Amino acid sequence: MAFELEITHTQGRARAGTFTTPHGTVQTPAFMAVGTLATVKGLDPLDLRAMGAQMILANAYHLHLRPSDALVRQMGGLHRFMAWDGSILTDSGGFQVFSLEGLRKIDEDGVDFRSHIDGSSRRFTPESVMRIERNLGADVIMQFDHVPPGQSDVPVARDAMERSLRWLARCRDEFARLLREDADAPTPEQALFPIVQGGIHAELRRESARAIVDMGAWRGFGVGGLSVGEAKPDMYAMLEVVDDVLPTDRPRYLMGVGYPEDLVEGVRRGVDLFDCVAPTRMGRNGAALTQDGRINLRNARHRDDPGPLDEGCDCTVCTRFSRAYVRHLFTSDEILGLRLLSLHNVHFLVALMQQARTTLADGTFDAWSTEWLARYLAGERARGAVARPVTPHPKR
Amino acid sequence: MAFELEITHTQGRARAGTFTTPHGTVQTPAFMAVGTLATVKGLDPLDLRAMGAQMILANAYHLHLRPSDALVRQMGGLHRFMAWDGSILTDSGGFQVFSLEGLRKIDEDGVDFRSHIDGSSRRFTPESVMRIERNLGADVIMQFDHVPPGQSDVPVARDAMERSLRWLARCRDEFARLLREDADAPTPEQALFPIVQGGIHAELRRESARAIVDMGAWRGFGVGGLSVGEAKPDMYAMLEVVDDVLPTDRPRYLMGVGYPEDLVEGVRRGVDLFDCVAPTRMGRNGAALTQDGRINLRNARHRDDPGPLDEGCDCTVCTRFSRAYVRHLFTSDEILGLRLLSLHNVHFLVALMQQARTTLADGTFDAWSTEWLARYLAGERARGAVARPVTPHPKR
Repeated sequence: MAFELEITHTQGRARAGTFTTPHGTVQTPAFMAVGTLATVKGLDPLDLRAMGAQMILANAYHLHLRPSDALVRQMGGLHRFMAWDGSILTDSGGFQVFSLEGLRKIDEDGVDFRSHIDGSSRRFTPESVMRIERNLGADVIMQFDHVPPGQSDVPVARDAMERSLRWLARCRDEFARLLREDADAPTPEQALFPIVQGGIHAELRRESARAIVDMGAWRGFGVGGLSVGEAKPDMYAMLEVVDDVLPTDRPRYLMGVGYPEDLVEGVRRGVDLFDCVAPTRMGRNGAALTQDGRINLRNARHRDDPGPLDEGCDCTVCTRFSRAYVRHLFTSDEILGLRLLSLHNVHFLVALMQQARTTLADGTFDAWSTEWLARYLAGERARGAVARPVTPHPKR
Repeated sequence: MAFELEITHTQGRARAGTFTTPHGTVQTPAFMAVGTLATVKGLDPLDLRAMGAQMILANAYHLHLRPSDALVRQMGGLHRFMAWDGSILTDSGGFQVFSLEGLRKIDEDGVDFRSHIDGSSRRFTPESVMRIERNLGADVIMQFDHVPPGQSDVPVARDAMERSLRWLARCRDEFARLLREDADAPTPEQALFPIVQGGIHAELRRESARAIVDMGAWRGFGVGGLSVGEAKPDMYAMLEVVDDVLPTDRPRYLMGVGYPEDLVEGVRRGVDLFDCVAPTRMGRNGAALTQDGRINLRNARHRDDPGPLDEGCDCTVCTRFSRAYVRHLFTSDEILGLRLLSLHNVHFLVALMQQARTTLADGTFDAWSTEWLARYLAGERARGAVARPVTPHPKR
């Protein structure tokens, strides 16, 4: 049945399962590649399918501005438009709108903002965002929320959290109306996920999660406002707080996360779904994920390296191309280079979650994840030169 | 046997056949996609294989400068380096070196020039170019020739043509030495193609072709210095002159050509192999080839067009994506856009040559090619707004 999560294996807080959507099933835990503008940058939907991806993400804010949700709907909805017949989740655009410092004005009803493309005046309300996400036709749609700056203090985080709850009620009502009155939308049966907010404040996170649970029989839950500059232990602590409150039989989606170590740590704390632009952004910047940390392919030491990006990786890049070749593509500004690195990096995270599922199934997840993290983080420390991307907000 | 051309069907001057190389057979007539720097811009070797491409081109000048032919050889040669196990032809770089106006100095022995990348001083001679092409390991390698400016008058064209003949003799001798003394090169058995020069002067073309034929038992012939600004009737006339002289049982490669109509006109005049950067360059610029001429996907009239790039095309782009989607990718600067258009455009020319082979096999080539040209050129005239790329030298 659509939007059921069948949990098949657990170990501690970690879980493996199958999440059913109108466009197929998603084995969890899973990493969703980010296709902000209805394309995962540099990749073809066939690439995603071939690497085992089952669910991807798109962005309501971006698609509303270009090419417009009306056009996407006219073209048959997001799945048809981008030729991806698997599951899709749309983020509401709350994060994007609230990131428009100086270009937006918040009131209780919604947000006035200027388009980052042409400066035109726009207004998002919980209701308008539901209509946009209805037009796009993703399987799972996220509520419109008030996203406070990372590391906000309690009063600011509380204000945003409470407004997000009030907006959630309005999203819920408008979504229910659309389900009834707009039945011929591209994906008639969609699921609305609420978003747990509360910054890095345990009591706010707990309060947000409890209030959301009390508001309805949700098909799943988003956890937002993390990986925005806070210390990693703070993020991990919030996940445990939220895991204690949310029902175990619904998927939890940790928004905008993340890096390989965050995925593994997230799974250890009961997270089922992740998304992040990091693998494709890193790919465009010349960096590859390996089980020994990130490497920079622009580095001269790869000049004559006949080995694959990541030893033992079975992706279509590592089985065919050398580091020397990928480096040549980058030094020559050939776009195949960023395509190959994006392919490898997305595959890396998709396969990492597959490993988590496999080890959960055979009961070795704890040992595997501990060992995996030790090796990856040791590699990262050894190569201190490979800095994190400077952006403090990789995505939400 | 390697480098045999088996002609299976003819109609007038047109021929269909099978050209055997150390890396497989090539059905002719064929379009070779251009992978200047060991990558067909934006495409994966698997894409080329899937669309039926059998032979591609790379460039000795560019690869010598970056990443260097020595490195390519160290990595196992061009086939291994770029993960393309089909046939490859390398252009010698004569065209590129002679295009470096103001940065090169020609003498009888060779050419001094400055690298377009770092300004470093370099020297090409017929002998050094043979060693470069030996290191790269293509199946077919082109001689180092003196390429005069397009539309050169008879004295200039004659001088270049005669020097090309003298350099051909030196290429032949050095290549023979390498076959003997450098037997463990990446592709031990290669074929050297001479290049017929002579500008748009029939008597020079005839003289060049005859002199070349008298110089050895060549495995095939290049026809260079065309599609460099001369009128199309002049180019077509030169092909007929050359066809009259060259032996019919060897492949003829028309270098740097070209546009769809030039391919069809070339086949009608006995050409077997073509190459051109136009399909990928046009793809990066937002233009698609269709049987009714070129269209510009940036044009607003494609905004809500649910149809494919080219009606009836069975490529992986046209069977999945709408013009509206491809236009969205271009207006959003998404790199998938140029990848999809490059894919479609290269497929268009590969499939066009497949149609030529099919109609040659069933005896309908004359009628098919006449009809095809009429429709394509009518579409081009109707859309006069779609100008040719401004560069007078699409490639050689």
